[in-house]
Amino acid sequence: MASVRIREAEEGDCGDILRMIRELAEYENLSHQVKISEEDLRADGFRENPFFHCMVVEILPANGEPQGPRVVGYGLYFFTYSTWKGRSVYLEDIYVIPEYRGQGIGSKIIKKVAKVALDNGCAQFRLSVLDTNKRAMELYEALGARNLTEVEGWLSFCFEREAMRALAGN
Amino acid sequence: MASVRIREAEEGDCGDILRMIRELAEYENLSHQVKISEEDLRADGFRENPFFHCMVVEILPANGEPQGPRVVGYGLYFFTYSTWKGRSVYLEDIYVIPEYRGQGIGSKIIKKVAKVALDNGCAQFRLSVLDTNKRAMELYEALGARNLTEVEGWLSFCFEREAMRALAGN
Repeated sequence: MASVRIREAEEGDCGDILRMIRELAEYENLSHQVKISEEDLRADGFRENPFFHCMVVEILPANGEPQGPRVVGYGLYFFTYSTWKGRSVYLEDIYVIPEYRGQGIGSKIIKKVAKVALDNGCAQFRLSVLDTNKRAMELYEALGARNLTEVEGWLSFCFEREAMRALAGN
Repeated sequence: MASVRIREAEEGDCGDILRMIRELAEYENLSHQVKISEEDLRADGFRENPFFHCMVVEILPANGEPQGPRVVGYGLYFFTYSTWKGRSVYLEDIYVIPEYRGQGIGSKIIKKVAKVALDNGCAQFRLSVLDTNKRAMELYEALGARNLTEVEGWLSFCFEREAMRALAGN
């Protein structure tokens, strides 16, 4: 029987990761917003002082099956900082390909990220979710997350490049 | 006449920064949530691979005035990553003490952060704001920010330490 393994991503996984980034954005109906390339992922995640860390989910074939392991999900995160609580982890993306959903793989990724957070002295582990993604919200709440937008009223704002250029006077 | 200067924070500014972190949390009626110490700030922001960067606003005394510069505001930020847009900056806190508000110092901090973001190849600059803080939201929107919670429906979720421990099985 096939088994599931979660491991740290390597540079050679960037092709698989980018494919899944695009699939996740399609699921959110926001795929026109994906501007990143495989080369960006390699440069930003697998050099000194990386901007992110990533774990991938592999399905290991049963003994005797000819194919190699297959990457079927990922969790991409980075360290942030709360001036109230200190070191924090932010899970930017979590994704499992459709045919492997409903097997608890998403929960496995979240548990692994929680462990990384604790091992690095983090006081919290944050993520964002679209208000239309009820299934994800139910999972996060079932696992113990609080909806800070609902409970405390936090809204997310963003300056895109054009706005930044105007601000910086470039 | 006194003039305003924004400079990179040094370790010796941590006392001033912590005082202002507490004032900002009080303004948001959430000061019971501040668990951080001056030592945490020193260790997390002023060692190798810091978890955050910070700029402070100083008022420089006029010629002949006996007192030294006074720190009256700060902006605390870190680098994050968007799997759609790439490198990003997140402004965790922005604060100006009450007696120096209404002079454009907040806008100066935001402009400086936008410049840091562009200088580091970032495609976006994000921040969060409480839905009760209308004054801040008006400022950010006037400076070109989009409210992503309103426009796209992003909600913020958080696992606190207890939830993380349960997840990690500790």
